[in-house]
Amino acid sequence: MKRAGEFSLIDFFLSHFPRPRVPVGPGDDCAVLAPSRGAQCITTDAVVEDVHFTRAWFSPEDIGHKALAVNLSDLASMGARPRWFVCALALPRDYPRPALGGIARGMSALARTHGIALVGGNFTSARELSITITAAGELPRGTAPLTRAGGRPGDVLYVSGTLGEARLGLSLLQAGRRRAPAILRQKRPEPRVALGRLASRYASAALDLSDGLAQDLGHLCAASRVGAELDLEALPLTPAVRAALGPEGALAGGEDYELLMAVPPERTSVFERACLRAEEAVTRVGRLTPDAMGRIRTGRGRAPRLPAGFDHFRRGRQGAD
Amino acid sequence: MKRAGEFSLIDFFLSHFPRPRVPVGPGDDCAVLAPSRGAQCITTDAVVEDVHFTRAWFSPEDIGHKALAVNLSDLASMGARPRWFVCALALPRDYPRPALGGIARGMSALARTHGIALVGGNFTSARELSITITAAGELPRGTAPLTRAGGRPGDVLYVSGTLGEARLGLSLLQAGRRRAPAILRQKRPEPRVALGRLASRYASAALDLSDGLAQDLGHLCAASRVGAELDLEALPLTPAVRAALGPEGALAGGEDYELLMAVPPERTSVFERACLRAEEAVTRVGRLTPDAMGRIRTGRGRAPRLPAGFDHFRRGRQGAD
Repeated sequence: MKRAGEFSLIDFFLSHFPRPRVPVGPGDDCAVLAPSRGAQCITTDAVVEDVHFTRAWFSPEDIGHKALAVNLSDLASMGARPRWFVCALALPRDYPRPALGGIARGMSALARTHGIALVGGNFTSARELSITITAAGELPRGTAPLTRAGGRPGDVLYVSGTLGEARLGLSLLQAGRRRAPAILRQKRPEPRVALGRLASRYASAALDLSDGLAQDLGHLCAASRVGAELDLEALPLTPAVRAALGPEGALAGGEDYELLMAVPPERTSVFERACLRAEEAVTRVGRLTPDAMGRIRTGRGRAPRLPAGFDHFRRGRQGAD
Repeated sequence: MKRAGEFSLIDFFLSHFPRPRVPVGPGDDCAVLAPSRGAQCITTDAVVEDVHFTRAWFSPEDIGHKALAVNLSDLASMGARPRWFVCALALPRDYPRPALGGIARGMSALARTHGIALVGGNFTSARELSITITAAGELPRGTAPLTRAGGRPGDVLYVSGTLGEARLGLSLLQAGRRRAPAILRQKRPEPRVALGRLASRYASAALDLSDGLAQDLGHLCAASRVGAELDLEALPLTPAVRAALGPEGALAGGEDYELLMAVPPERTSVFERACLRAEEAVTRVGRLTPDAMGRIRTGRGRAPRLPAGFDHFRRGRQGAD
């Protein structure tokens, strides 16, 4: 459904994206897509002004990138190949058109990188800027999805990339800094789509790290009904994160959008070789244990005093912290 | 992707819906759905506080109903069978849990009526309440979708139900009234899903009336590259709408969520018989003409002074009017 005042906004926004190759594209009441061959993975996620970004710190391109990236990260964690998305924008009435173009450009560049097609959109007016995306990916025919629930005791835990940088980036922004590698990680998370598809051939379970390893590992353990042992010394941290947050701070770092994967021990060496060939950085950080309570322990056998992790509802808003 | 503060909210919200019969339901990073047999119709639409509803005039159940109804109406206009939806809620921090339960109940009741399954959701905090839904329907295998673009000169125009009531309902609310049939039409639009599936066997083009007949007919004419002639005397109006708005006011009535359908003349009699059998009320209101400029004229050959139609971006907000 489109309303009249939207038309030029929608056309302007869509003009930044290639016309999707589907039976009916944007502009009608619905997009029409050919039947999918494999199973479909569906996710919906929103970014809201002053919660997930501020206009002062994020360029329109950053906002458009992040809105799509958080959805692609969910597809990555299931091992899905990105296929299509729809984008609902809520815009303040005075939101400048050049900034809308910037959002479209940031989103379109990331969409092109991952071969995902924008097939529909919607505009509404609102007091604060927000972008809600629903994205769909496809699993190769006959492939099982990589869920949170498949982990077994003894599986080795891996994380991709490095942890805690997005959180450090947010702290730096709050402290008045405007340029640093960690700030880029906060503004432009890179969804691990290729790694997710690779991992789906080896891993028993996976999820993407949006709330911090401590909390997200808890979700994996709960879904798989296992416990876990973490080696805090092994966490992949940049020197800046090690100095500013330390391993326990990095555990609570939200918005990393790295993948956490559980790999059965008999497959770890082929998995590691495959990652090496694909130039995907992964690090062993622990293993799953038979603890049915989902307890997480450090390598020294003590339950660590884990920080609470990242929680938009409990902490203050990004701009108000 | 779920964040920690969301968990109990999401579980509470989902508990009002039946567990969908899909390979992976809500709770993981993505829902996983079996491949669709027919083509998929996808739409995304949002309702925003003080734009599409106010908390003073709409019960939580009304809000939940309307948020899903506007999406189902888009599926209806394509002739699709509703299959699944995802729901992203943006909630003020102090939004009461019983009210959230009311939203879920209103949405769930309508979902049950139309056999559509909630497969995923997302919560974020926000200053104003809004609900963004992405819904998917399926076309029977081998069926063409009913788009806006298939109309041909000579096709007969039909509308379902009656026009202008939702607009009248809004005026009554603004005037301090709280109970009237027209107010119910404003709060609880009924998507014409069964009629849309019936019409897809006979009609050449269709869309749902969200912006008022004047404006939406203009969209159909533009997409089909035809003009139209409207018989203002034939518009189906309740006595209350006739008295309060008249035919020209009803033309501009937004949010009716009735269907506008173009039917080739050789199929009108079978179409009308099929509607009669199915107890779907439809009314002939005009026909498409060869005017490539998309002009709309009344039966007397003059271009009517058509009101502008319903436009959230140009008019004031619902609560501020």
